[in-house]
Amino acid sequence: MPAFPRADRMQDIQPFRVMELLARARQLEAAGRDIVHMEIGEPDFPSPEPVIRAVRQAIAEGDVHYTPATGLPALREAIAGFYLHHYGLLVDPGRIIVTPGASGALLLVLGSLLNPGQTVLMADPGYPCNRNFVRFLDGHSRTIPVTAASGYQLTAKQVETYWEANTAAVLVASPSNPTGTLIPPEELQAISTIVAQRGGRLIVDEIYHGLIYEGEAETVLVQNDEAFVINSFSKYFGLTGWRIGWIVAPPTTVSDLDKLAQNLFLAAPTPAQHAALASFQPETQIILEQRHEAFRQRRDFLLPALRELGFDIPVTPQGAFYLYANCERFTDDSLQFAEALLEEAGVAVTPGLDFGTNQPEKHLRFAYTTSLERLQEGVERIRAFVSKIQA
Amino acid sequence: MPAFPRADRMQDIQPFRVMELLARARQLEAAGRDIVHMEIGEPDFPSPEPVIRAVRQAIAEGDVHYTPATGLPALREAIAGFYLHHYGLLVDPGRIIVTPGASGALLLVLGSLLNPGQTVLMADPGYPCNRNFVRFLDGHSRTIPVTAASGYQLTAKQVETYWEANTAAVLVASPSNPTGTLIPPEELQAISTIVAQRGGRLIVDEIYHGLIYEGEAETVLVQNDEAFVINSFSKYFGLTGWRIGWIVAPPTTVSDLDKLAQNLFLAAPTPAQHAALASFQPETQIILEQRHEAFRQRRDFLLPALRELGFDIPVTPQGAFYLYANCERFTDDSLQFAEALLEEAGVAVTPGLDFGTNQPEKHLRFAYTTSLERLQEGVERIRAFVSKIQA
Repeated sequence: MPAFPRADRMQDIQPFRVMELLARARQLEAAGRDIVHMEIGEPDFPSPEPVIRAVRQAIAEGDVHYTPATGLPALREAIAGFYLHHYGLLVDPGRIIVTPGASGALLLVLGSLLNPGQTVLMADPGYPCNRNFVRFLDGHSRTIPVTAASGYQLTAKQVETYWEANTAAVLVASPSNPTGTLIPPEELQAISTIVAQRGGRLIVDEIYHGLIYEGEAETVLVQNDEAFVINSFSKYFGLTGWRIGWIVAPPTTVSDLDKLAQNLFLAAPTPAQHAALASFQPETQIILEQRHEAFRQRRDFLLPALRELGFDIPVTPQGAFYLYANCERFTDDSLQFAEALLEEAGVAVTPGLDFGTNQPEKHLRFAYTTSLERLQEGVERIRAFVSKIQA
Repeated sequence: MPAFPRADRMQDIQPFRVMELLARARQLEAAGRDIVHMEIGEPDFPSPEPVIRAVRQAIAEGDVHYTPATGLPALREAIAGFYLHHYGLLVDPGRIIVTPGASGALLLVLGSLLNPGQTVLMADPGYPCNRNFVRFLDGHSRTIPVTAASGYQLTAKQVETYWEANTAAVLVASPSNPTGTLIPPEELQAISTIVAQRGGRLIVDEIYHGLIYEGEAETVLVQNDEAFVINSFSKYFGLTGWRIGWIVAPPTTVSDLDKLAQNLFLAAPTPAQHAALASFQPETQIILEQRHEAFRQRRDFLLPALRELGFDIPVTPQGAFYLYANCERFTDDSLQFAEALLEEAGVAVTPGLDFGTNQPEKHLRFAYTTSLERLQEGVERIRAFVSKIQA
């Protein structure tokens, strides 16, 4: 028996493997090694200049008191304006809740829905925190193995098959982390229909929405007013460390989310809310679109380069900044491969283990969050590393 | 049956009454009324100038990427330095976890300890979010009525009496919100001993620690290395809207808190971490001590003034910026009294209802977070209001 109380959930919630890898990479750098970072889900760009300028002014003017728990009214209106401009969709600003990152959004949405013992359906591989948020609330994640055949996304058929009496919600991400793939609109519509029939909730993570390289991503809200949308200023908008995101919630759920936010956070950080507000300035939008283009160039370099080296990437990812690659041609232990690649070749990538239990040992995630030059250097190092293995 | 899933906890988690009152106060102001704000638990001072300067520089240099989940190493060391300087206590920086406010700290600590159905002991009246954090995790709050006789604080005897097999922890706040009172060191020691004997955890909220007007507050860490300390940069340091606080954790619990922070927050907001770091500069400390003195003057004005009007404040509060007053001489419905005081006299105060179920109808909380001049104006308005009632 332990001497002190410890919640059972702590046995199940795992730290990110990539953090250990990152710590080791930093250690090697401190010792003078040059490391190509393809492990980090954080864009290398600084916060856009107009954003910095706006925040510097807001804080100089002393505007860093608490905001309402749902966020600055002007920011909620600006986010509503974003839906009108990008998707041609009218969204009531009263349905928008500003949160401390998409993390805060997930905590509010799942906390307002889930009773202990209830289940959330989600794809495996998927973003690791999703499982851990559900476990934090003493719910169960029903992780459903997905394959290249469905673009690594849940299908309506799977949702139907896996739905049980105690299922409360389905959580999908489009584009997905780690695969960068989208759910086709007709499949999402079919999922919406099944979830509605079953009396559940659909939660759609749209945090990579600005970063699409093939066609356009459509928000689920175009189809479904009863879905929860999670979004973030961290990815397309590049405001990672500020910790700012949002929810678009079904109207009847807003008061629940508001009172949860009051209690759990008080409010999202005020400087970050000013940063977010400045993200919608036309001047910032020009910078963000240049970066979007830079990400596209990186993807268009890295994808064929990795395929040519022998990594199997069966689905061309339409968005985000990740490539999810099968590495079984080189190894049946992707964690060991990632560790050796870091130690011997100075390239950091994320082992599949962080994303679930669906053949993690055969997969690696490559992030193109560093410059084209560094990605080229990384590919050359990987080339040398795998030819040594195969020799 | 509801058409959609909704967590049972949402029936029990209450919004803050004071937020409705604040919203009404803002409405009246928008309509041209002048309102004296004695309801808000947020200091009226702006962020200190050296803090603003440091953050402006950090963000201009692009230093707004994610930090480690436990916080910037330099900030953890600065907080350890604060314990050495203020309490003469050596604290390993490895035990310090930087969090998004004390709110984030409470979520991590309670989330790492509590299983569903377990109980946390706490004083009533007390900070309303405490109960709601426990409910969020499907635990039970055992709120224990406290009176002026114990300075509105839990006693060791009460902890002993109320402890049950499923009790996991005791949560105390010293100084307390809403009463501003301290737990005497010998009582805290006795509570520590009982909690240790029972195999539980003691959690001590020390967020009002810089704001003490009688004697010195001693951190529980001087006595007890196995207690969790919750602290914040919002109160003494005045960094409310930045959302930044910290935990000092027992060494064996740090890895649990770290992995929870990775999953729930990623990290505390980076600009706020730079602000916190600059709070320890000598130049900032001079400003903060001037503010500390201003709070003392406000207390020393407001306390006798309210007593003279007929409010009963039996214990002189040693800290924080609140006076918790019995108003039964004027009303047996403090909520209605607070609403009438706002509408008719233009003074906003917080009804007891926000702090628990221990005679809330007889109590009001007055915050001295506004200037001495405004407090004087408030007292004159209250004087006129109560003489009309009594006439």
